[in-house]
Parts: sequence; structure tokens; C-alpha cells
Amino acid sequence: MDFQHSAKAQDYIQRVRAFIRDEIEPIEEDYLRELHSRENKWVVLPIIEELKAKAKAAGLWNLFFPNEEHGVGLSNLEYAPLAELTGRSFIAPEVFNCNAPDTGNMEVLEKYGTPEQQEQWLKPLMAGEIRSAFCMTEPGVASSDATNMQATAMVEGDEIVLNGRKWWSTGIGHPNCKVGIFMGLTNPDAPRHQQHSMVLFPMDAPGVTIERMLPVFGHYDEPYGHGEIRFDNVRVPAGNMIAGPGRGFEIAQGRLGPGRIHHCMRLIGMAEKALELMCIRASERTAFRKPLVNLGGNRDIIANARMNIEQARLLVLKAAWMIDKVGAAGAMSEISQIKVIAPNMAQEIIDAAMQIHGGGGLSDDFPLAAMFAGARALRLADGPDEVHRGLIAKIEMIKYKAHMAHD
Amino acid sequence: MDFQHSAKAQDYIQRVRAFIRDEIEPIEEDYLRELHSRENKWVVLPIIEELKAKAKAAGLWNLFFPNEEHGVGLSNLEYAPLAELTGRSFIAPEVFNCNAPDTGNMEVLEKYGTPEQQEQWLKPLMAGEIRSAFCMTEPGVASSDATNMQATAMVEGDEIVLNGRKWWSTGIGHPNCKVGIFMGLTNPDAPRHQQHSMVLFPMDAPGVTIERMLPVFGHYDEPYGHGEIRFDNVRVPAGNMIAGPGRGFEIAQGRLGPGRIHHCMRLIGMAEKALELMCIRASERTAFRKPLVNLGGNRDIIANARMNIEQARLLVLKAAWMIDKVGAAGAMSEISQIKVIAPNMAQEIIDAAMQIHGGGGLSDDFPLAAMFAGARALRLADGPDEVHRGLIAKIEMIKYKAHMAHD
Amino acid sequence: MDFQHSAKAQDYIQRVRAFIRDEIEPIEEDYLRELHSRENKWVVLPIIEELKAKAKAAGLWNLFFPNEEHGVGLSNLEYAPLAELTGRSFIAPEVFNCNAPDTGNMEVLEKYGTPEQQEQWLKPLMAGEIRSAFCMTEPGVASSDATNMQATAMVEGDEIVLNGRKWWSTGIGHPNCKVGIFMGLTNPDAPRHQQHSMVLFPMDAPGVTIERMLPVFGHYDEPYGHGEIRFDNVRVPAGNMIAGPGRGFEIAQGRLGPGRIHHCMRLIGMAEKALELMCIRASERTAFRKPLVNLGGNRDIIANARMNIEQARLLVLKAAWMIDKVGAAGAMSEISQIKVIAPNMAQEIIDAAMQIHGGGGLSDDFPLAAMFAGARALRLADGPDEVHRGLIAKIEMIKYKAHMAHD
Amino acid sequence: MDFQHSAKAQDYIQRVRAFIRDEIEPIEEDYLRELHSRENKWVVLPIIEELKAKAKAAGLWNLFFPNEEHGVGLSNLEYAPLAELTGRSFIAPEVFNCNAPDTGNMEVLEKYGTPEQQEQWLKPLMAGEIRSAFCMTEPGVASSDATNMQATAMVEGDEIVLNGRKWWSTGIGHPNCKVGIFMGLTNPDAPRHQQHSMVLFPMDAPGVTIERMLPVFGHYDEPYGHGEIRFDNVRVPAGNMIAGPGRGFEIAQGRLGPGRIHHCMRLIGMAEKALELMCIRASERTAFRKPLVNLGGNRDIIANARMNIEQARLLVLKAAWMIDKVGAAGAMSEISQIKVIAPNMAQEIIDAAMQIHGGGGLSDDFPLAAMFAGARALRLADGPDEVHRGLIAKIEMIKYKAHMAHD
Repeated sequence: MDFQHSAKAQDYIQRVRAFIRDEIEPIEEDYLRELHSRENKWVVLPIIEELKAKAKAAGLWNLFFPNEEHGVGLSNLEYAPLAELTGRSFIAPEVFNCNAPDTGNMEVLEKYGTPEQQEQWLKPLMAGEIRSAFCMTEPGVASSDATNMQATAMVEGDEIVLNGRKWWSTGIGHPNCKVGIFMGLTNPDAPRHQQHSMVLFPMDAPGVTIERMLPVFGHYDEPYGHGEIRFDNVRVPAGNMIAGPGRGFEIAQGRLGPGRIHHCMRLIGMAEKALELMCIRASERTAFRKPLVNLGGNRDIIANARMNIEQARLLVLKAAWMIDKVGAAGAMSEISQIKVIAPNMAQEIIDAAMQIHGGGGLSDDFPLAAMFAGARALRLADGPDEVHRGLIAKIEMIKYKAHMAHD
Repeated sequence: MDFQHSAKAQDYIQRVRAFIRDEIEPIEEDYLRELHSRENKWVVLPIIEELKAKAKAAGLWNLFFPNEEHGVGLSNLEYAPLAELTGRSFIAPEVFNCNAPDTGNMEVLEKYGTPEQQEQWLKPLMAGEIRSAFCMTEPGVASSDATNMQATAMVEGDEIVLNGRKWWSTGIGHPNCKVGIFMGLTNPDAPRHQQHSMVLFPMDAPGVTIERMLPVFGHYDEPYGHGEIRFDNVRVPAGNMIAGPGRGFEIAQGRLGPGRIHHCMRLIGMAEKALELMCIRASERTAFRKPLVNLGGNRDIIANARMNIEQARLLVLKAAWMIDKVGAAGAMSEISQIKVIAPNMAQEIIDAAMQIHGGGGLSDDFPLAAMFAGARALRLADGPDEVHRGLIAKIEMIKYKAHMAHD
Repeated sequence: MDFQHSAKAQDYIQRVRAFIRDEIEPIEEDYLRELHSRENKWVVLPIIEELKAKAKAAGLWNLFFPNEEHGVGLSNLEYAPLAELTGRSFIAPEVFNCNAPDTGNMEVLEKYGTPEQQEQWLKPLMAGEIRSAFCMTEPGVASSDATNMQATAMVEGDEIVLNGRKWWSTGIGHPNCKVGIFMGLTNPDAPRHQQHSMVLFPMDAPGVTIERMLPVFGHYDEPYGHGEIRFDNVRVPAGNMIAGPGRGFEIAQGRLGPGRIHHCMRLIGMAEKALELMCIRASERTAFRKPLVNLGGNRDIIANARMNIEQARLLVLKAAWMIDKVGAAGAMSEISQIKVIAPNMAQEIIDAAMQIHGGGGLSDDFPLAAMFAGARALRLADGPDEVHRGLIAKIEMIKYKAHMAHD
Repeated sequence: MDFQHSAKAQDYIQRVRAFIRDEIEPIEEDYLRELHSRENKWVVLPIIEELKAKAKAAGLWNLFFPNEEHGVGLSNLEYAPLAELTGRSFIAPEVFNCNAPDTGNMEVLEKYGTPEQQEQWLKPLMAGEIRSAFCMTEPGVASSDATNMQATAMVEGDEIVLNGRKWWSTGIGHPNCKVGIFMGLTNPDAPRHQQHSMVLFPMDAPGVTIERMLPVFGHYDEPYGHGEIRFDNVRVPAGNMIAGPGRGFEIAQGRLGPGRIHHCMRLIGMAEKALELMCIRASERTAFRKPLVNLGGNRDIIANARMNIEQARLLVLKAAWMIDKVGAAGAMSEISQIKVIAPNMAQEIIDAAMQIHGGGGLSDDFPLAAMFAGARALRLADGPDEVHRGLIAKIEMIKYKAHMAHD
């Protein structure tokens, strides 16, 4: 057992930290102000492409890919501290071509895609030339139970016909979003977890309509955004099916393992950032003739934040290590654990940071409100807390099967 | 001891409930959709004035005023259940002319205003013809310690000169907002709580500049809003001073007692509304072949919400009763208690309701995100939780003075 | 609505408070030391009988009885503040003949007892000459579901035969405990809530064996105690049946309403006592050159305790008022609510008080450890938190029946 | 970074686990029943010495010593999982000669002891022939601030004279307890952290009086126990001073680092045991026709327990690793973090396990009540939560010195 990052990881940590410090932090506030001043916020400002080019040139590109062919060959465990660093910024993930949902989509295409699919979609995604969406959640049903999904992906000859309505499709607002993965019902008569398929669709396919973009606590997260899409008889070639009919859940399971980890890593960074802002504000502001940090229970809040971050980070690293060692399937409990822990931990610390910032903390003068929205949303995205707790308990109870009374 | 509302209160409860059910609920969703579709949201849509007229005609007007001359003569205790009912809606408070900060401002003018001030400002406020703002919090200092305030209200001959910067001035965005109460430093050499004064200023006075409107979790609360205002040598007649120089804190204390109670009453209603939405959603949606309410700990969440609402409501009612019996000064601990309890309770229940709504709960499809922003903001407005907890402990410890070791 | 106690209640509050202050508090510590120094702690020390005589002479006797025939005619609402006062002391409840489970048993006998049962058992209980037990919980099954009970009370001619094993029968260790109420299965074929009966049995009946006394966190609560009893073909006359065969649940429901309230009232008093001890210790002790109360988050802990006590007390009073107005059946949710809230609130405050007392708080130098055990046990006794939360949610959901999806 | 234990650690884990499973678990319940049935519980039953001999023969002895000379040469990180295993049992720590406070005392003697002190005390301690105590906490002052200590250790010629009163001296009740370490004031005029010294004293020295043993929630933890000791002019040779006058705090700091870690490791094991008992009970018992585990929020409780244990364990391992790498001084924040996290986590899980056990959980039929007492006590022993939180915050704030406003 060893808590020190590998030499390779340490090297990347230093480089990513330096890049963020030198290239991103100095411009992020201006970038956000500029973006938010625009009438149309669904744009890519030039600075983003410049930064992407610089990152690519510096070899800080596709860091999340665990193999050397596509990425830099970092394990999930090695990537974790980098994802954490990018979680401190709203734009860093894209700058390093490591943002959701593209990362997950790229992994799916790399693992399950045909050569044609890889050529058409994976290559430009890896080059950062296009972006993608993932369409799973539906407005009409409790999508926490994914088998509830009612949208259909019916094979008709050499075409697949998509119908239905999806929402919370992240990234759909981005002007470069060119492709999406649609998950839908292909065979309602198959066993419960073999009814659904994943199908690639071009964003400009006839019948695809973005009905509206959805706010999260009033934040639209431009230019990525979360959208509601209608699919009306959208016809795509049969070759757009990923892996094969009925394999949707199998792919989703593999996709969501690392994907959830990435979110959680970034949440650790977000929580660190919130704690940092909290400590600075608590030092600078005075009330009743004392810096806020010396008032009431504020030091307890800081200590609790530190403890909760440390614990959550270690659990995320452990989960990443397990995915590396035994795969996502063998790390199911750990993945669910961090999926519950990380956003709740982050939400609580951000809330405390807001409180110490007073009214300012609620406004957009600080990144806290947007961070809160992000953390809060991740208590639902990729499975709500409740489903993950249920899974953790289920796995725990396997040990006690012999004791179980009959229902 | 008796937990039944007075006959008079019961009568008003029935009438206000019926009015909200028959006149407000049927149109509120449409109203909000219409407002949010506008380019300029800082407007009063005609339906609001219509509803105000109906409410006035029905005798449901200025309900908060505890005397019969200005209102309908309900005590704070009797007004509480009515404020709770209005807390279920975003527009009901204005419809009954019972919305903050006008209520507090009207009470100040009624209690401390000169006949001229009352004629000029109280009368149109009571008639619902104009609206008002209250300018206390400042961006540059921790306003949780009100003695930190640095804006100045200097008497120069027969004029008062206002300078400084205020923010989180609620209601400033309303097109009818015509007057504000400015709290500023008049005499820096006086004892700590006698340095500040309250001064009336017309919104259109030269030197008053609304620099910007502030979002709370991305919500601007149009058409009321919260603004940042700059005062540059704003000159108003000496007759605009309320009560007299140095009496700012004295008035603020009296103003905030009932004001805090009103907020808390409305939060109870908001929490009830959130619980209602939670129970409905948990009944209607199914996952894993069961209604959500029958899954996991959801029933515990509902039970806890019910218990916390009941407790908070009783504490708010008790605090209202104490203000009626012994005045705000004698109810200081109780007022601070509900000021801590009510928004925290509401925030937690709204958060739980969002969770059961899934992604939808985060969007504007439901009122939950806006309610969350409102409840969260009230953990800071009118004094942050921390200050109120400190005050409660201070009052508690008075009993133990004789035991206190020397510091 | 009125938060002031009735004149009658106020008079009793003053008298009970004075009695406790003048007669009980001065001797309680000595009494406990004396008792705990005894080899055999299952004794009634003379001071107890002296105090009982004084209380009876002062008219402070059977205060819990809501009618004038048997008690002093205080409503549940009026009795609440008195029970709260007695909750501050381990012996006060018995001194005023108001201790569990005798109070509940007396109420059962008064309401459902035959004249013979009343003559034989109610009269000496009311006189404080004997004590009683209530035997419901069983070691072999989850008694949170009372229909699980397996002990039997079979009618055989003019006798009833009791068999089975009960535990957590409180008061069974008391030397004056002469009678118990046994709840057992009489008719396994009846509908689920009409299978059980309540039967009176003399403690010295052949076949009744106290197997052992049970500690709660190491406390045996002498001389009352909680015992495990074996019933081997215990034969009692058919006249010992209360109300009639199969009416056990009906009686239990009525019995437990006020009984739960009494426990909760006492817990409020216990919490107040703990807060008092906490404030005194936090004032007297210094660390890092400051009284503990001025360190870290200690004032927040005190403020939170004050708020939670206030809220819980009001909810208990409201529940008592509802029992008075509409009966226990109409106050089911409120009774369950306080049954959850009061012990959890008390446990948390006592735990915090222990923490401020340091090591001493864990020992028997302070009453805190015993109080903790008492509060903790009440999260299980008379129904665990979980069952009560379930009931609260069930009642809440009745309003939403129309919305419920099919399971 | 690697989350797999070293081969050496894995080997010991297997052997310790097997020893506990084969030798200790089968007899522990009988042992405790036998001990508790004794009139005098302050005895060493023969089985203990037998087990010690077996453990020693198996090479499972003094596992905690980080060097090969005295122990088996396991690092703190490697010892952690072994300590965790011993934490599942009340007797395992002594069986492996790894119990507090002997471990800490042995480390002090090894690091700071003179050859004479080592010969006289360390050798028999390491052989498990004698046991020891550590006397620091005092009843008269808040010992959370160790500089409050008032007992004196005055050097008079070639003797040291000990005076004062200590309590919560653990192990003092053990019949083999032969020596103690006394911490007392030697030079009141020295700087604050150089006034105290550590001095060895034989338990049978004239003037040493064990006044009483102290219960923790009614548990005396026989035969170890926690005692209150009076020192009246206890004279020991000057050679009993450890390290030198005024070095008490320096030694304490080093002693408490690993000592705190050991406690926390055992708490992890205790929490695992509680979770195990909880899952078994929740499987076996049924209510409302379902196993308890399928009722209400019980699965959430299990999931939360699993997550909190995992997180706490990782933090303890990280702290152990840091002590190994940079020493206790460099791991101050991490040590304080686990000292707060571990007992609170364990207390909460044990409390939840009790709840699922119903009444039985409160009694001595299960180890839960004793475990609760142990975990609760560790929120105070070796520094209360509050002091550790304060230290964590202090270390955190060092980064923000430049931002600090003047007080």
C-alpha cells in the first residue's frame, strides 16, 4: 500500500497544475464575463480554441484515455488527480479534451465502435473538432430505473428508426455538437436488461428537434447546456447501432463506471476550490472586530470540510484503482459509493462557503452558485443517490444471504 | 393554552385560502410563463393589478397591519396562518399588499413617520400604488455585523447627503418602486448603536444609480429583484430623516421583528407546498415497478418533513404570540430561533422534493428551484444563521452569569 | 390560539416546581449515592415513602389522571408542564405517583376495568401502595410489529392460561410490584388486530418467573428495572381478562397515546436539565484561558439545543391538546411525531452535554449517562422510531390517494 | 499509489484473522459471561494467559512495534489492518500484547527510556508479564487543554515528589498493572509547553491511592478499568524521570500519534463488527411480514455505514502511512482528522445497529452497548473532538496567513 502518486502521475500533476495556473486561471473570470455579456451565449469564444491548441501542443490532451494509443496512457488512478485539478475550473475539462459526456462517448466508441464508426466520430472527437451528446434520461418516466425508458430504436431493414423524447442531454447546446448516442427500446420482448440498444445519430438528422434548453437552478451552463430533444421517425443507417441490438445496458454499465469516477474527481477539485474561497473570505472579512474565521463555529466548518474532502478523495482514488485492477464490474459498490459521497460532500462545502460569503455567495460574483448547481445536479445525473445507496446495500447483503428470513 | 386559531383568524384563513385557490392558483403558472417569455421581465403584468383590485375589494388587503386603522386588525398570531398561505405562491404576497420589504417599510412609517412622511409615502404604499426598497447591506463589508456599515447620511443644514454603495436591496427592480429607506452613518463619534440613521429617498433622486440587478442561484426574482445601488451625493430634505439622527438601529430592531416573522411564516407555506409536490410526484412516478413513495427511505423523508414543518410552524406561531404579548424586544430569542429554523427546514425539504422530482426538480418546470433560492437566501437575509445562533446563545447564557469563569 | 398555560396549570406548575426544588433536589444526589452503595439495590428507601406522603398531603398526587374523580382533573395539556418538571429527576415521577408504567396501567383499569379489577388493583395503585408492570415485548420476535407476539393467553373454562416469554417489562424489579398486564394471543384465527387480549396477573402467581433483570447501557434503573419473565402455564381467573378477548390492540392503542405523551414530556424536562448542566459546565471550566462556552462552536451547540427543545416542547403540547380535543385516535400522527422527535432531541442534547463535561460526563458523577440511557431506550420503547415514521408517512399519504400509481 | 497491502502485511492479516477466528471468537462470549458472573471482576482468567502464550508462540506478539528489535517490524501502515481485526474483540488486543495504554507506554520507554528504565519496565511489558497505566487527565480542570494540568512532579535532590489527583487512568484496575507514567508540573516558570515532565512510578509506591474505578455508561471495562488516583507526596528516585524535566509535552506528542492511530484502527474493526451484527439481525428478524432489511430506510442505513467505514479506513491508513513517511509531527492534521472521524463514525453505526436489534441491542446480550461506550469515550480520550477540529482548522489556515485581517 502506498499513498504516493506514480512518478508519471506526479509529472502530469505538475504540468496540468502549471497549465491551469498560467493559462486558464488568469483568463477564466474575463472569459465568463465576456460569455455572459453576449446575447447568444451558445458560442465558442476564440480563447477556448487557443487554449485547446496550447494544451494539445503541451501533450495535455485526452488525458482520460487509459491506453497509449488514444491518450497518454494514464490509468484511472493516475488520471484522478488531473481530473481533480480540472474540476476547479468551468472550462479546463474542455481545454484538455476531457469533458463529459465526450469522454464517456469516446470510450464507448473505442471499445464497442466499428472501424467506420471510429473513423467518422471517434477521430474528430479525439481531435476536439466536434462534440457529442448522450441521450438516455426521459421526461415522462422515472429514469432512475433505466428499464423504464420508452423511447424506441426499431430496426427496419437497413435502417434504425428513433422515436421518443429525451431530456438532460448534456452538451447538446454546443455549436460543435455533431453526434449523439441514443438509447432506446429495440426489443420489448427480450429479458429486461436486453431490450435496449445504443444508436449513433447525427445532430442534424431529419426528425431531431431540440425543443428547449433546461436550466439547473437558473444556470444553463452555456455553451454546453442540457437539452430536451424530440425524435420523430429519425432514420439512421443500421451501421449506427453500437455493438448490437439489446446491448445498451451492457455498454451503459461499462460507460458509466469511469464516467462517474471522472465526475467525482472533478467534484473533489470543486470542493477544494470552495474550501479555498471559504478560507480566504473568512480571513479577509471582519465582523464584531474579528476575522470571520475566529467567530463561532466557523473553524469547525473548515475542519469538517477538510476531513470530508480527504475521505472522499481517498475513496475516489480507491475506486479508480479498483477499476484499473478488476474493471468497473468488480468495482460496482465502490463506484456507487463515490457517486453518493462526492456530490453530497461538495454540495455541503459549497453551501458553507456561500454562507461565509454572505449575499455575494448567492450571486454570480463568485463561482459558488454555479458550482452548487453542478454538484446538486450530480446527485441525480448518472443515477440518483437513492439508486446507488440501494446498490451498495444490495452488494453488502450478499454476504448475509444465508441469514435471510423469507419475505 | 389553546392551539386553535381565533374565530377571526379562521374566517380570514378560509377567505384567503379560497382566494388563492380560486383566483391565484389557476393563473400563476401561466403568469410566470408569460413573464419569463418577455424580453423585459421588469414589468407588472395586468393580471397582477386585477388581482390586487379583487383582493382589496374582498377586504383581503394589508392583512399584516396589526391595527384596525391601517389593516384589518389581525394580531401577528392571527396573521401568521395567512402569511403561510401566501408563501405557497410567488405572487400572492403582492396581491394582498403584504410583500416584503413594503410591509416592514410601512410599519416603520406608521410607527416612526411624520404626518408628512405618512401622507407622501405610507398612503400610496398602503394603497398598493407604489412600492419601496430598504437599503442596508453593503458589498464592501461583512454586513452581518451591522455596525460595519460605511455608507453615510450626513446632515448638512436642511439637507441630508447620502453617499455609499448598497446591495441586496430587494424590490428595487419593480417599475413601481418609488421610495427607499437608506441606512447610513450620521455620527461616527456616537456610541456604537447610535451612529446610524434611516433616511427616506425617492428612487429618482439625482445621484441614485442602480448599478445592476443580482441573481440568487441564477434567479433574478423579476419584477421585484435585488439590486446594487450607488449613492453619490444624493441630497434629500432634512424632513426625510425617520425618527431622528442616530435612531437607525432602534428602528431596525423594531422593523425586523415582525419582518422576520413574516418571512418565516411564508417559508412554512413554501415547505408545505414542497412536501405536497414531493408526495404527489412520489405517488405518480414508478420505478422498479413501485411508486417512488414505496421505495427505500422515501417515507422517512416524508415523515421527517412533516415533523419538521409542524415543529417550525409552532415555533413561528409562538414567536408571533410573544411579539403580540411583550413586543419584539421581549421576543428576541424566539425571533432569532425561527429565523434560523424556518429557512433551514424549508431548504432541506425543498432539496428532498427536488431529489424525488429527478432532473425536472432542478429545472423551471417546477417551482422548486426558485423556492430553493428563496429559502437559501433567507439564511442570510435579515441576519445570517450564525448571528442569530450567537444571539440565542447569548440570551440563554444570561441565566448562568453567576457561574461564568473569568475570560 | 394562546401559548399561556391555564391558571390551574400555572398554579400546579408553581407547586410542583417548589416541591421538586425544596423536597427532591436537595436529597436526590444523596439518595442515589445511598441506593447505589447498597448490595441489594432493589429496595424502596424510606425517603421515597416520606416524599410520597408529603406529595399526597400537598395534593400533588395522580396528577396525570385527566378526570377529577381519580386525579386532580388536569387535562393532558395541563399535565404536560408538570410531567416535564418531573422529567428532571429520577425519582420525582414516583413521588407524585405519576410514573410509567403505572400511569398507563391505571388508565387502562379506569377505562376498561371491571369494578372488581378496579377494587383489587386500581385502588392500591392510585394510593401508591403497590406498583405494576406491563408485559408486551418478546425476546424471540421483532416486537416493533406487535402482531408478531407469540405468547398465549388461552381461555380454558373459567381460567386463562398464560404461556410465553416477555422482556423489557419495566418496573418488574420493584419490591412493591404486585400485578402485571400480560398481552397474549387468544385467538389466532381472528383478524390480525383482534387476536390478542390483555390479562391481569399477580406477580406471585405460580408459573411466573423473573428470569433476569436487563441493563440499558449498563444501567439497571433500580429499584424499578426492566425484566425478562417466563410464563409457564400461569393460570388466572377468567375475570382477569380486561375488556374482553381480542381487545388487546384496541386497549393498547388507547393506553399508549397518553403514555407516549408522558414519556415525551419527561424527555423535554430531561433535555432542559442536560442543557442546564451543559451551560453551567461551559461557564465554569476554562481551557486555553477562556470559559469553554467561548470556545469553538459551543455557543452554536447551546443555541441548537435551545431551538430543538422549544420546538419539541410545542409539538408535545400540541399533541396533548389534540388528545384532549379529539382523543388519541385523532392524534395518531401527532403522537407518533413527538414519539420520534422527543427522544432523539434529548439524546442529542445529552450527548452534547456529556462532551462538554469531558470524561466526567461519561461517569456516574453526573446524571448524564443515566439520562442518555433513558432517552436512548425511548427510541425503542413503545414503538421504535422506524414504526412511528412509517405511521406518520402513511397518514400523510392518505391525502394523495388519488395520485397513487399502482404498485 | 497502491491500495493493496504489502505481502508481509497480507501474511499477518491472514494469520491474525485465523487466530481470532479459531482461538478467540469461539471462547469470547463464554469468557465474558464467566467474568461478569464473578463477584470480583478485576481478575485475569486463565484463558487469557493461555491465549497470550499461544499468540506469542505463533509470532503474533507486539505487532504494533514498528522495528524488528522489539516487534515483528511492521510499519504503522502494515499494522493498521491487524489492529482493525483486534478491534472486533474485547480481548484480542491484550492477547497479542497490543493493548492501550501499554503500547504507547512501551513506545515511550523504547524511545526515551534509559537502559535501566527499559530493563525494569519495558522488558516485562514486552513479555506481557506486567501492565501499565498512563496518568494525565485530572478531575479538577478541563484537561482538553493539557497545560491546565495542576498535579506536580517536583524534583527534590535525588527524588521526585508527585502530588495531585488524576482520573481516567486506563488499565489501573488490572491485577498485573505494576507501573504508571505520571505527567505533572515540574517548572511552572518555564515556557508553557516545557513546564511538565513524565515520571515513572510503581503502582505500589507509598502515597499512591486508587480512590475508585469509573464507569463509562455503566461499564467498568473489567479487568482493565479506568480509575481515579490520588498522589500524596509519592517519592520516586530521580532516575524515574523520562527524558528529562520539562519534556512531558514533547513525549506526549510523539506518544499520542501512533496511539491515536491504534485506537482508530480498532474503531474501524468495531464498526465493521457492528455493521455485521446489524446485517445479520436485519436479515433474520421479520416484521410486517418482511425481513427488517427490506423495511423503510434500513438499506440506506446499511449503505451509509458501508460508505462511512470505507472512507474512515482509508483516512486511517493514509495517516498511518504519513507517520511512517514523515513522522507524527508531519502528520498532525491527518492524525487529528482520524481522531475525530473514527469514533464518531463508529458511534453512529453502533447506534444504528442497536436500533435494529431493538431492546436487545441496549442490553448486554449483544456487545453493542459496550462497544458504544468504547466509541463514545474515544470522542474524549486523547483529546476531545473539539480540540482536534481546532487543530485541523489551524493547520488549514496556515495557507491563508497572507489574507488574514487583523483581529
